[in-house]
Amino acid sequence: MADWIGGNCPVPSETHAKLARQRQANLTKPAGSLGHLERLAIDLAALQGTDRPRALRAPIIIFAGDHGVAARGVSAYPSDVTVQMLYNFASGGAAISVLARELGVPLLVVDAGTLSEQPVPGVLTDKPRRGTRDFGEEAALTPPEVVQALGCGRRALRQVIAEGADLVILGEMGIGNTTSAAAIACALTGRRPELVVGNGTGLDDAGRERKVIVIKQALAFHGIEGSGSKVEDVFSAVGGLEIAALTGAIVASAQNRVPVLIDGFIVSVAALAAVRINPSCRPWLIFSHRSAERGHQLMLEEMDARPILDLGLRLGEGSGAALALPVLRLACALHNGMATFDEAAVSGRIP
Amino acid sequence: MADWIGGNCPVPSETHAKLARQRQANLTKPAGSLGHLERLAIDLAALQGTDRPRALRAPIIIFAGDHGVAARGVSAYPSDVTVQMLYNFASGGAAISVLARELGVPLLVVDAGTLSEQPVPGVLTDKPRRGTRDFGEEAALTPPEVVQALGCGRRALRQVIAEGADLVILGEMGIGNTTSAAAIACALTGRRPELVVGNGTGLDDAGRERKVIVIKQALAFHGIEGSGSKVEDVFSAVGGLEIAALTGAIVASAQNRVPVLIDGFIVSVAALAAVRINPSCRPWLIFSHRSAERGHQLMLEEMDARPILDLGLRLGEGSGAALALPVLRLACALHNGMATFDEAAVSGRIP
Repeated sequence: MADWIGGNCPVPSETHAKLARQRQANLTKPAGSLGHLERLAIDLAALQGTDRPRALRAPIIIFAGDHGVAARGVSAYPSDVTVQMLYNFASGGAAISVLARELGVPLLVVDAGTLSEQPVPGVLTDKPRRGTRDFGEEAALTPPEVVQALGCGRRALRQVIAEGADLVILGEMGIGNTTSAAAIACALTGRRPELVVGNGTGLDDAGRERKVIVIKQALAFHGIEGSGSKVEDVFSAVGGLEIAALTGAIVASAQNRVPVLIDGFIVSVAALAAVRINPSCRPWLIFSHRSAERGHQLMLEEMDARPILDLGLRLGEGSGAALALPVLRLACALHNGMATFDEAAVSGRIP
Repeated sequence: MADWIGGNCPVPSETHAKLARQRQANLTKPAGSLGHLERLAIDLAALQGTDRPRALRAPIIIFAGDHGVAARGVSAYPSDVTVQMLYNFASGGAAISVLARELGVPLLVVDAGTLSEQPVPGVLTDKPRRGTRDFGEEAALTPPEVVQALGCGRRALRQVIAEGADLVILGEMGIGNTTSAAAIACALTGRRPELVVGNGTGLDDAGRERKVIVIKQALAFHGIEGSGSKVEDVFSAVGGLEIAALTGAIVASAQNRVPVLIDGFIVSVAALAAVRINPSCRPWLIFSHRSAERGHQLMLEEMDARPILDLGLRLGEGSGAALALPVLRLACALHNGMATFDEAAVSGRIP
């Protein structure tokens, strides 16, 4: 495993959390009436170590990768789509491209392991190999490839936060990656594939059945059933290059005091892996939404996470996280901009 | 009842709904993967009768009123707060003031019936009387006062849409108005007060008990138990001036082809009254959030509504609707701005 990844993440500022809770109690509204928004503003204040939390600068990184296991009919779309979507990201036509534009935040797309033979213009290439091996018959990645993928995440993260970041948004693209993510989720939690595997990009029930069987056989083949396996062994057996890159980016972001807005199922699986490798990163994770992909709710429960949105999304690309960004921004604006009872000369509760 | 209020609202354009559904199916994403956002974009396209729905111009109207029943200890805050908050709205310190600024939309505050003896600078005054009568001992409003309050909503609505509106956001302020709203909700649905009454701005359990008893006795006293009463009689018996104004604004907005983003419990009660008076307004309502106030879920069920957000809010002021506006805007941006499979040369599903 990469040696940097165990390095401690800073502890959020309890002083600033306390000040933020006091401020929330003094704003001109019934105590607690802003619900989840109050919690978000307080958490951000503690993470950012500030009286005035903000979510203005929120660069997005999308990690893309291909999957050998896609050959087993586990996706509704062909593997070609991963690289085609790299071009779509770069030319501004993908959902996350539109969202980044609307939100006024930079978008970095990283080829962390797609099948593309040449670099895609506008996309950062940082990959140990083109796609993973088919984990139905061999290890998806060698241990050095896993280390390199984790490092890819850290490198991309450092690049974007160098230009300033109040938080980062992480997303992914990769035909077949719900299969890899579900296999990782099973191996990290000991859950049965039936409970974790969803319809991905839109499999029918027969396709989902096939996916369950592929994962079940792979877990047995690689000896990673139950929940006792180390993350590095799981990544090597059934991993995805973009998933390992996400894990690396999540840990590196927390180590650098930058909160991470977690997207849907796949990013949440990468987050669970990050928390297992380095539990000190957990406070830095903000969960953006509950997706329609079956296994996502389980991942949220594993991390005791309460997401901001629940819109039945199942697109990936960081789109759910991007959609939650305005809520964070408005939570900060309310925290920073509302008058207190004293300032506005508004009476408090009846004693 | 005001004679204009039964006038038919236009039917949304099925042609544009169909075109929007086709476009959603051709965008570079798995079909259905944008979940609730797809539905919102399609609904807006049909309501606005356009290929390119938008939610840019979204003026906010807040109707404020006071309640005679507040003297019965049904709120955690004194009635003074209603007028104090008018000043806070006008000076920019209230939650909705901050949200309007951040979202770049105009905010019109209407004194539809507060206790204020003089006009508040920056606030439109349009009221038949200062506060309602205590509905624990007499009718809250006379029939002509109800008609005038409905008209207040229509006048304010017409004023804001004259400057252009892709949709409108409606909100309210009024100490004691969850009590009036809960009484109206019980009279319109036949539900028992125990199921509808919530903690409002933060009553303890004893306060909530008191509120239930006040409402139960008032429903019996005015003979509006069960669900057979006419809306005008209910408004006269237990109504609020700001609640009737909201109902008038909702119907008028639909009559003028402007979609309405519905806020929490109180606006939803006004919406239910609007739908009961004039069912043709229902398609024009978009539900922004599920609030923490107990009775809100029942109102949503009565109107078969699926809200966008669920953030545990219970502030009112249109704040939940304002928080949902960015989701609508991004739903439109995705609908209008994403590339199609053909445009981006991305492969479709495996046949």
